[in-house]
Amino acid sequence: MTRSSVAQNTAVLLIHCPDQRGIVASVTRFLDENNGNVIYLDQHVDIALDMFFMRVEFELDDFQVPVEKFHDYFDTLVGQRYNMTFTVHFSTHIPRMALFVSKMSHCLYDILYRKEAGEWNVEIPVIISNHENLRRVADNFGIPFEYIPITKDNKEEQEKRQIELLKKHDIDFMVLARYMQILSPSFIQTFPSKIINIHHSFLPAFVGARPYHAAHDRGVKIIGATSHYVTDELDAGPIIEQDIEHVSHKDTVQDLIRKGKDVEKIVLSRAIRSHLERKLLVYKNKTIIFD
Amino acid sequence: MTRSSVAQNTAVLLIHCPDQRGIVASVTRFLDENNGNVIYLDQHVDIALDMFFMRVEFELDDFQVPVEKFHDYFDTLVGQRYNMTFTVHFSTHIPRMALFVSKMSHCLYDILYRKEAGEWNVEIPVIISNHENLRRVADNFGIPFEYIPITKDNKEEQEKRQIELLKKHDIDFMVLARYMQILSPSFIQTFPSKIINIHHSFLPAFVGARPYHAAHDRGVKIIGATSHYVTDELDAGPIIEQDIEHVSHKDTVQDLIRKGKDVEKIVLSRAIRSHLERKLLVYKNKTIIFD
Amino acid sequence: MTRSSVAQNTAVLLIHCPDQRGIVASVTRFLDENNGNVIYLDQHVDIALDMFFMRVEFELDDFQVPVEKFHDYFDTLVGQRYNMTFTVHFSTHIPRMALFVSKMSHCLYDILYRKEAGEWNVEIPVIISNHENLRRVADNFGIPFEYIPITKDNKEEQEKRQIELLKKHDIDFMVLARYMQILSPSFIQTFPSKIINIHHSFLPAFVGARPYHAAHDRGVKIIGATSHYVTDELDAGPIIEQDIEHVSHKDTVQDLIRKGKDVEKIVLSRAIRSHLERKLLVYKNKTIIFD
Amino acid sequence: MTRSSVAQNTAVLLIHCPDQRGIVASVTRFLDENNGNVIYLDQHVDIALDMFFMRVEFELDDFQVPVEKFHDYFDTLVGQRYNMTFTVHFSTHIPRMALFVSKMSHCLYDILYRKEAGEWNVEIPVIISNHENLRRVADNFGIPFEYIPITKDNKEEQEKRQIELLKKHDIDFMVLARYMQILSPSFIQTFPSKIINIHHSFLPAFVGARPYHAAHDRGVKIIGATSHYVTDELDAGPIIEQDIEHVSHKDTVQDLIRKGKDVEKIVLSRAIRSHLERKLLVYKNKTIIFD
Repeated sequence: MTRSSVAQNTAVLLIHCPDQRGIVASVTRFLDENNGNVIYLDQHVDIALDMFFMRVEFELDDFQVPVEKFHDYFDTLVGQRYNMTFTVHFSTHIPRMALFVSKMSHCLYDILYRKEAGEWNVEIPVIISNHENLRRVADNFGIPFEYIPITKDNKEEQEKRQIELLKKHDIDFMVLARYMQILSPSFIQTFPSKIINIHHSFLPAFVGARPYHAAHDRGVKIIGATSHYVTDELDAGPIIEQDIEHVSHKDTVQDLIRKGKDVEKIVLSRAIRSHLERKLLVYKNKTIIFD
Repeated sequence: MTRSSVAQNTAVLLIHCPDQRGIVASVTRFLDENNGNVIYLDQHVDIALDMFFMRVEFELDDFQVPVEKFHDYFDTLVGQRYNMTFTVHFSTHIPRMALFVSKMSHCLYDILYRKEAGEWNVEIPVIISNHENLRRVADNFGIPFEYIPITKDNKEEQEKRQIELLKKHDIDFMVLARYMQILSPSFIQTFPSKIINIHHSFLPAFVGARPYHAAHDRGVKIIGATSHYVTDELDAGPIIEQDIEHVSHKDTVQDLIRKGKDVEKIVLSRAIRSHLERKLLVYKNKTIIFD
Repeated sequence: MTRSSVAQNTAVLLIHCPDQRGIVASVTRFLDENNGNVIYLDQHVDIALDMFFMRVEFELDDFQVPVEKFHDYFDTLVGQRYNMTFTVHFSTHIPRMALFVSKMSHCLYDILYRKEAGEWNVEIPVIISNHENLRRVADNFGIPFEYIPITKDNKEEQEKRQIELLKKHDIDFMVLARYMQILSPSFIQTFPSKIINIHHSFLPAFVGARPYHAAHDRGVKIIGATSHYVTDELDAGPIIEQDIEHVSHKDTVQDLIRKGKDVEKIVLSRAIRSHLERKLLVYKNKTIIFD
Repeated sequence: MTRSSVAQNTAVLLIHCPDQRGIVASVTRFLDENNGNVIYLDQHVDIALDMFFMRVEFELDDFQVPVEKFHDYFDTLVGQRYNMTFTVHFSTHIPRMALFVSKMSHCLYDILYRKEAGEWNVEIPVIISNHENLRRVADNFGIPFEYIPITKDNKEEQEKRQIELLKKHDIDFMVLARYMQILSPSFIQTFPSKIINIHHSFLPAFVGARPYHAAHDRGVKIIGATSHYVTDELDAGPIIEQDIEHVSHKDTVQDLIRKGKDVEKIVLSRAIRSHLERKLLVYKNKTIIFD
C-alpha cells in the first residue's frame, strides 16, 4: 500500500475546456502511454455551460515525461487540441500558506493543530496580524508572527508590507482566519483564487459586518459559516464550503457567536484541505470540488 | 399512562409579559390551588427585551375553574397583576386547517398522509387551489377541493371568495403548501399569525421567486427551506422552522429543486405540528418554540 | 441541452476488476472509437483491496456497436483483458419495481408520490402486502394490490406465490417499504442485490425488532435509518444510505417512532433513486455509490 | 443586562422526585418568598417512569437564605415533602476539571483553547497522561502535566497515584480526552457521574477498540462520536451528546479517523459545557439535558 504513503511521488492535473467527445480517452491515453498510472480520476460536465472539468492524479515513479517538460508536452499533445486550460501540481512541492488573523483564536488553533498533528502537508512560514493578541499562540507553534497594524491612513502602505512579506516567504496562498480587515482591490487582484476567507454566515445571507447580530434580529433557526475565495466584491467570491448549526429562541447573540465558532473552524479547515489537495477548480465565480 | 392518551382533557396556556419576580410561582400556584395538574411547563426569559414567555400544559379533569370562565378568572387573579398577554387552548377543540396549493404535490401528500395516519389531531375541511391539477389527490383523501383561479384582474374578488370559504369552514389557520400566489395585504391582515408558508430557501437568503435558480447561480453548497408566518413583507415573517441539504457543483437547478422538495415538506410539516400543539408564540416578528 | 431530456438514449456501464494501469484509457478509447460520447465517468480505486470500480454513462445515438451486441464486443475487446465483471444498462429499459408493505403508509406514499410526480423513471406493476390496510392507497394510485397474508404455517407456500407474482410482472427489483416479515433465505437467494430494505435504526446499532424501543432504553441522542440490500444475515446486508435525527430525553418511544418515519422515508427513497439510476455497485457486502 | 454578566451571583438547583401535583408551585414559591429571582426554569416529566425532573437557576443577590444553609432549609421546607433528590450549585464555585490524555491532541487543543478564550468558566489544575507526547501542549497553556505510564503490572498502583493527584487538586470531575486506557471498576466507583469520556462511534454501535476499523468493515455511510459518563460497563454509561458525519466508499479507515476527530472534539466539548453549566441530570443510566 505504498501508494497512500506520504512519500509517494504523484502529480495532479486540473483541466477545464469546452465539452467535446473523447477528452477522457485522450488524457488517459497520454498518461498511460507514458507509464503514468492513474490513481484518481474525477470528471464533471456542466451541461448548461457545455464545459468539461477534470482532475487526474497519477503516479510519477515510472512516468517518462520529465516533470519540468510536462506542461509543454501535455499542452502540445493534448491541451491545444481541446482548447484546454490546465494546471499541474507535483507532490514534491509542499504548499506554502500564510495566515492572517486578528484577535479570535478558534480558527488559528484549529489550523495549527492540524499541521502539528501531521493532518496536512503544508508549510506555514508566517502569521500576519493587525493585533498583538495571538503572538503567543504563534510563538508556541514556532511560527514567525508579524504585527502589521492597520488604520485608515496606513492601509495602502501596510498592504505593501504584507505583500513584500508574502513574496519574501514565497507564499502559494493565504488564509484569512477571522482577519477583521477588508483587503483592498489591488491586494486581492495580486492573488487571484489564492485568498481563502471564512465568513460567519451561510452566504449569501448576512453579507458584511456583524452577521450573527443580523441573524439574531431576523430570528433565524439556523446559523452557518462559508469559506470562499476572496474577490473584489465583498463576501461574493466562489464558495468552497458551507455548513450550519441549528439555533433557537433561547440563543442570545453571544450564543450564536459561540456556536458559530465551531462551524467556522471546521468549514475553514475543510476548505484549506481541499485547496491543499488540489481538489478545487474555480470557474465563473463557482467552485468545482472533486472529493 | 392515561395522560398521554388522545382522549386526555388538557389545556395549554401561552403567556408573555414584562419579566418580573414571581411569575412562575403565581401561575403554578393558581393552577395548583384549583387542582390543575401541570404536565409540561416551559419558560423563557429574553434578557435583552426583558420579556417573559411561558407555555404551561395542565390537566382539566379535576380543574375547578369552568372552562368558559378560565380566561376571565386567570386574567383577574394573575394576568392583570403582571400585565400579561395570554391565550388558552383546550384539547377538546380540534384545530381546523385550510390548505392552499397550486401544482406541486410533495407538501400536500406529506400533510394529508400525516392526518390520515393519525399523526396529527387536525381537521382539514377544505383545500383551495388556483389550479385543477391536485383535485384528484384531494378527492382520494376525501377532502373538498375548491378551484379558485387567480389572474391580475380577478385577484381582489377571488380573495373575497377565499375568505368566505375560510369563514364558512370555520378555519383556525391555513397553510400555503407551495401555493404560488402572493396574498394581498388585506387578506394577510385578516389572519394575523394564522397563515403558515413554506419558502424554498434558507431565509433571508433568496427572498422571492426562483430561489433555487438564484442558489445555483451563486454556487452555494447548501440549500434550505423555511417555514414562517406570512406578514405584509414578502418572505419576512416570523421564522418557525428551517433546515438544509448539502449540494455540490454536480447538482443542476433541477437537482436543487428535487432535493429541496424533501426539505420543504419536512420543514413545513414540523411547523404545522408546532402550531397544532400550541408550542409556538410570536413576539416582535420572531417565534418562541417550546419543544 | 437535449442531453438532459428524458428522451435521451444512453447506456450505463458498471465495471469492477483488479486494479491495473490503463483501464480508464482502454474503456474510454473503446467508447470514443465507436462514437459513444461519455456524459459521466466516475471511478474509484479501493487501495486496500487493490480493486478498480467504474461507472460510465454514454450516449447511444451515434454509437456504432448494436445494443444487443454490446456485452459481447466489450467483453472481448476490453473486459477479458482486465478480468472485468461488468453490467450494462440501457435507458430504453424502464426498471420494474415491486413494493412490499404491511400497515405503515409513510414510505409507500413517499414512493408513490415520486413516481406520480415524474421524479423517477420506474414502473410499479404490483404492491404485495401481508395486510389489507393499504389497499386503498394502492387503488388511489392505480396499482394492483396483492394481499398475501403470512403465518408461520403458510410462509413457504406464500413466498412461492410472491415469487410467481414477481416473475409474472417481470420485476427487476423489489423494495420492502416497512414490510414487517422476514424473508426466507431461499427467497432472498432468488434475488441477489435486488431487494432493498429500510431498517429503522442506524445500523449496526439496534439490529432486529423494535429498534426505537431499544434506542429509547439506551438513551441515545440520535436515531437513524438505514437502507440496505437484503442478504441472508438479518440487517447485515450492504448499506446503501443512512441518515439520522437528533432526539432528546423529552422524546418518548412514540416520538422516536414518529420522528424516525421522516428519516426512514427519505433514506429509502434516496436508495431507490441510486438503484434506479444505476449508481450502485455491490462488492464484498459493501456498496460503491457513484453520486 | 447585568444578569448575563460573568460576575452574576446565582445558584442552580437540580431536582428529581416522583411526579406529583404542585411541585413547580412549591419550589418557585419557596424561591419567590425568599427573594430568589428565577432566571431559568426547565422541567421534565417522564410519564413512563412517573418521575419529575427540574433545573432552576435563580439570583442570589437578594436571596434571604444563607448559602450554607440552603440545602438544609430547602430539604426541610420542600424536598422532604416530595421525596426529592436534589443538588445545589453556586456560581461562586468555579468547577475544577482534570484532563486525561494519551497521544492524540485534537480534543485537548479544543478544550484548552476554549478555556483560554474565556468560553468556559473552569479551572484545569492538572493534565494526566500515560504518554509524554502532549507535555509540550500542556506547558504552552501553563497547566501542570503529570506523566503516569500504565502497564498491566502497575495499573492498580498508578491509579492510586492518579486518585491522590485528583484529590490533591480538589477535582470536581474529569474528562477522558481520548485517554486510551480502560479505568478499573474501583477507580470508576470513586467518581460516579464525574468521569466524562468521548467514544469514537455512535454508540451503541462499535463498542470497544478500533471502532473506525469496524465501521469501515461494515461499510457504514455515517460515522459518529458519543460523549458519556463512564460506568463499570465499557462504553455503556449515560450518553450526554452524540453527533455524526457522513462518509462514503471513498473514505479509507484513515479518512474515517481524520473526519471522526472533528466530530469527537465538538461532541466532547459540548458535553463538558453541559456539565459545567449544571444542565445535566443522570437518572437510571440516562441523561436529562436542560438546554
